[in-house]
Amino acid sequence: MAIKHSQDVEVVQIPSGVKTTRQVLISAQEAPNFALRRFIMEPGGGMPRHTNTVEHEQYVLTGQARVGIANDVFEVKKGDVVFIPENVPHWYQNTGNETFEFLCIVPNKPDVTTILPDELPC
Amino acid sequence: MAIKHSQDVEVVQIPSGVKTTRQVLISAQEAPNFALRRFIMEPGGGMPRHTNTVEHEQYVLTGQARVGIANDVFEVKKGDVVFIPENVPHWYQNTGNETFEFLCIVPNKPDVTTILPDELPC
Repeated sequence: MAIKHSQDVEVVQIPSGVKTTRQVLISAQEAPNFALRRFIMEPGGGMPRHTNTVEHEQYVLTGQARVGIANDVFEVKKGDVVFIPENVPHWYQNTGNETFEFLCIVPNKPDVTTILPDELPC
Repeated sequence: MAIKHSQDVEVVQIPSGVKTTRQVLISAQEAPNFALRRFIMEPGGGMPRHTNTVEHEQYVLTGQARVGIANDVFEVKKGDVVFIPENVPHWYQNTGNETFEFLCIVPNKPDVTTILPDELPC
């Protein structure tokens, strides 16, 4: 591939997410070192607390959300950059009235996603 | 780092470019496998034909441009995805009236940029 129009790329529902879809814009088969994906979370959508065995570099394209990383919670919006190290628990909640969309780049390594139980109240 | 606001990140002029600046959003020192950068080309700006020793995965954030990759020329706009293999000649020309901005992800490997002479007329 040289060029793709992202609107032409298949949109796939994420079973473990709520109102969350993903597009693989550049796959592990198309590039030697890392894959580029776009996530789209509808208003009210998000992803539960989970870990991945690969790190994430992310860039927010539109919307706003609450993002949990380890024990911290951040409010993020368009133009924000997020780094999640491998194996660190994280979650997302769209807190706006528009879609929350972000790019997520991961290395071309095996990625195991583990959904975690809700955190116990203090 | 966990979160950055991209408007807080230093903007650096690219000497070999025309009206072109770059922000390193996630540096090679901040992440284990790849770096995330944002390029901003003002109207009339661009980058001459050159090669890099690392591949580029790119996502157009805003604006429109003409992009040359090897012997092909593409018109790209917001939402388009670009892949440039390592050592393949490429160039950019902002063809719009607004800034042309794109993300560019590169592996954490030594990158040598070589500016190429203009192509000879056929």
